[in-house]
Parts: sequence; C-alpha cells; structure tokens
Amino acid sequence: MKYCSHCGSDAVTFAIPEGDDRPRHLCGGCGAIHYINPRVIVGVLPYLGDKVLLCKRAIEPRLGLWTLPAGFMENGETSEEGALRESWEEARANIRVDGLYSVYDIPHINQVYLMYRGELADTGFGPGPESLEVELFTEAEIPWEEIAFPIMQETLEHYFEDRKKNSYPLHRGVIQRKL
Amino acid sequence: MKYCSHCGSDAVTFAIPEGDDRPRHLCGGCGAIHYINPRVIVGVLPYLGDKVLLCKRAIEPRLGLWTLPAGFMENGETSEEGALRESWEEARANIRVDGLYSVYDIPHINQVYLMYRGELADTGFGPGPESLEVELFTEAEIPWEEIAFPIMQETLEHYFEDRKKNSYPLHRGVIQRKL
Repeated sequence: MKYCSHCGSDAVTFAIPEGDDRPRHLCGGCGAIHYINPRVIVGVLPYLGDKVLLCKRAIEPRLGLWTLPAGFMENGETSEEGALRESWEEARANIRVDGLYSVYDIPHINQVYLMYRGELADTGFGPGPESLEVELFTEAEIPWEEIAFPIMQETLEHYFEDRKKNSYPLHRGVIQRKL
Repeated sequence: MKYCSHCGSDAVTFAIPEGDDRPRHLCGGCGAIHYINPRVIVGVLPYLGDKVLLCKRAIEPRLGLWTLPAGFMENGETSEEGALRESWEEARANIRVDGLYSVYDIPHINQVYLMYRGELADTGFGPGPESLEVELFTEAEIPWEEIAFPIMQETLEHYFEDRKKNSYPLHRGVIQRKL
C-alpha cells in the first residue's frame, strides 16, 4: 500500500500501531489503520460413481495443471454458495453438496481453504473460461503428477482413502512452504 | 475506498470490470482492481470439567456481554494458531486443542467463523485488555440472555448437547441477518 485509500496521502508507513502487537499500514495523514487479513478459498470435490471431476487450468498460476474447482470467496455469500459458484464458473458443474470435507491453512500465502464434497447432479459439465478441459477420472486415471496444488492433492488422496471405508470425516491440514 | 492505494488517484469507481460479474473498486488512474473479501474470525470454546470459559467484553460491539474468545485471523498464522492467540489475548487462557468444532458463515457482514474446542491446560486465566471479566460457567450458570453474538450462542448450545452424548462432530451453520 503506497497511498492511503481513505485520504489519498502518500505518508503511509508499515509500523506497529499503539496498543497493537504487529505492523500495519498506517496513514500519517488521516491516522487510518489498514488491516490486511487472510483470504478464504472455497471449492468442491465433485464426484460421480467412482470418478472425480478435475479442471485443467487455463490461467496462471499452474496453467495446464489439474485442480478441483475452487476460488476466492466473495463478500455476501456463504462458503457453500461460493463453492457452488466456483464449480459452475470453472466446470459448469451442478453439485449436490454432502458437506464440508476439508479445511486447510496455508499460512505463508495467507489463505484458508474450505473444500466441500458433493455429487454431480448431471453430466452436463464442461470448461468455463478459466479451464481448458474438465474431465472425470477414477483414482487410477488421475494425473497425479500434474495436480496444480498440494491442498488439492491431499484432498483427493483423503477422498479415495475415505471412499474405501465409505466414511467421510472432516480433514484438517496445514500446507507449509517448501524449504 | 476513495483513493487508489496503488497510485493515489481519486478516480476510483465501483463498477464491474471487463470479464468479471460483480462490481469492484476500479482505479481510473492506474487501472488497478481492488478486491475486498470476507474475513475469518478464529476462536476457541475452552472447557474444564463441566464448565466453559466466557469473556465479558470490554470493547464495542456488545460491550458488557459475554462471548467465547475469538478475533480476526492474522496473516502468517494458521487458524488454530490464531484461535490460541485470541484465547491468550482475551482470556490469558492456555488451551489444549481437541479439534475444529464449528464453521459458521455470516454473509451479511462478510465473515467466516472457525471455532475450535479445547480443554484449559491450567486455571491461570484472567481478563486480557479486551475483557472485563473471564469466568467458568456450567450450562445452568451461563448468562444465556447476555451472550454477545448468535454464533457463540449456537456453538455453546451445540457443546452442551454434544457433551451429554460425549460426541463432538463438526457443526456448520449460517447466521442470517435478523429481519
């Protein structure tokens, strides 16, 4: 942040406000404190029979790699509504949500993932503007070496393990920066 | 947002960017799109024996009403780390976390709550700067008419029900604006 979004001043510093314990963007002009907080990514693991729906990314990062439909949660929606919106936008998929399935923290990029699990309501899926291809894969068919993000890889691994037991507890995890 | 935080221009409009489907703060000076997303509140339901720890709020909103320790998740931390930090800041409480206990959406104020459940590791708790009092309550003792927020009321109700069954599944809910 170079300029204060309240008053337009360029006297913005990054320092610890009085009574706080960590640096914030502080405006020397109007005194505003600008907080920056983690963002929520919402998505779905869509399944049909023994297959899972994946999207091949048409955008950076990880263009050309495969992922579950997910994206930034928007103001004014619930996390489930956001997950269904992303499934439609990226995969034109209509989902019947079973429940929240995985909650992951990725602290080095300030993100929290809320992934739902849900059955495809029909097979009328297809790529939205952010996807090159959308396909159903069995566990053996999944391009495991071409999964875009570790959170998606772990969620998929949990799913195929849980499927053998027919029990789908909530999975919680933390993805740490690779050293 | 009145001024662009990138370039300081006052030519900021609230309009739908090309290729998007909802209005954003757009800078007519440098072209920046400023996204505003929901924030995450992290907290703990701290218990000891048949009692739960509550904090009497020393700050607005709901000054003087009782709540579970919770607050805005910060960049660079996991949701569990944030929940423990808030328990310390508000209640000087040391917690052994059992697990994630409730996930609530409050779409009209753009918030997602992640509440953990955990046992107090000791009885050395006490009010931090944002609390007037910190006390342990049995179910019968809880000031049910003086709970600060519906999300906390529902989480407490779930807890005392679950305690009778000795089973603590994840609870997911949505708090809608009161009409």
